[in-house]
Amino acid sequence: MTTRIVELRRGILKKNDELAAGLRTRFNSCGLLVLNLVSSPGTGKTALLERTLRELRTRGAGVAALVGDLETDNDARRLAASGAPVRQINTHGICHLDAEMVGKHIGEWNTLDLANLDYLFIENVGNLVCPSSYDLGERIRVVLLSVTEGEDKPLKYPGLFNSADAAIVTKIDIAEPCGFNRELAINNINQIRPGIRIFETSARTGQGMEDWLDYLADQRQPAASLS
Amino acid sequence: MTTRIVELRRGILKKNDELAAGLRTRFNSCGLLVLNLVSSPGTGKTALLERTLRELRTRGAGVAALVGDLETDNDARRLAASGAPVRQINTHGICHLDAEMVGKHIGEWNTLDLANLDYLFIENVGNLVCPSSYDLGERIRVVLLSVTEGEDKPLKYPGLFNSADAAIVTKIDIAEPCGFNRELAINNINQIRPGIRIFETSARTGQGMEDWLDYLADQRQPAASLS
Repeated sequence: MTTRIVELRRGILKKNDELAAGLRTRFNSCGLLVLNLVSSPGTGKTALLERTLRELRTRGAGVAALVGDLETDNDARRLAASGAPVRQINTHGICHLDAEMVGKHIGEWNTLDLANLDYLFIENVGNLVCPSSYDLGERIRVVLLSVTEGEDKPLKYPGLFNSADAAIVTKIDIAEPCGFNRELAINNINQIRPGIRIFETSARTGQGMEDWLDYLADQRQPAASLS
Repeated sequence: MTTRIVELRRGILKKNDELAAGLRTRFNSCGLLVLNLVSSPGTGKTALLERTLRELRTRGAGVAALVGDLETDNDARRLAASGAPVRQINTHGICHLDAEMVGKHIGEWNTLDLANLDYLFIENVGNLVCPSSYDLGERIRVVLLSVTEGEDKPLKYPGLFNSADAAIVTKIDIAEPCGFNRELAINNINQIRPGIRIFETSARTGQGMEDWLDYLADQRQPAASLS
């Protein structure tokens, strides 16, 4: 039984990788920077995105977001308040997004023209395990860790941290009441993914947002020069 | 392909349910109360258990814990400081515990005599989705939600909250800096699982621990009367 499951799982992942590669080609061909945001439930992906979408729009960028949850469209409604086009994916029990879901929702999104966008943010289902295996066609995978979760999360969930291109420590405005050990957390992230770019942000106070937004602008450059 | 996967998944769950039923019979026959603690990563399962094990031991109860993580034995080391017997299960990439893992680790635990125990706590892998489908032979499933995670988690992850017998709102000592809306969170838990017993605790200050410990003592009664 186990062997058959492993074979099926490989088959699913191979199919996902092929779909993701197709999406990536499509995104790159129109100079679109796509980011996949992964973290525990409640780390603050939506709060970070609310502020990021708003600030990028103020700077004149074309932004959109796809957001995954098992149920509810709470996050899509929160993000849509920024004025950016947003679409909710409900997975109904599935613990991660996959490339097929992303492709399907983009295909049905009649009002969205990818060519007019600079950034597409994909907020994954809150889960520190399963999303690591599913490429969504993103160029940058961002893992978030809040100051409330415990500094050893990178060591306990190495797969996800190891698959990320950038890391964000969120909710730094409440680091002190949480007794957060910043040095330990940063060391643990670096132990799993040496040299990864690490941001420290508070979506509530705005602290650290400039660095994050500058990074997003820098990452746009290579793609923009292709178009 | 999808049909075959669903069939395999049903087969796995059926096998898990059979193993879990066997464990439950065994636990009940020696009057042992087994609890399965589930939550997001970082909600504070280990911190709650550290205090719970210590206080139950002070009251003269026989307690032990099994703790699941993908990697590291950090949590087992933390819990063992209570003096209780503790064993770490490393799942190496698997996103939940299952009955086979629990049975295997109890079987190999030569120093543990179930008949001398009153409580066995099983701390699941931090994940709000996948553990909901895997019965571990527990009598009580406890879902934890911290004040830092957002009040709408029960609505977004209804499967896990709906499968629980009790809920604990954790980290209430930092409710205020987190801007936690207590009434909304309680309403959301009740919307998914009407009438569920809800505790509010801080493992740091001890607030709410008496209610939780009294509940544990009450729940022991029916099983104890069987022995």
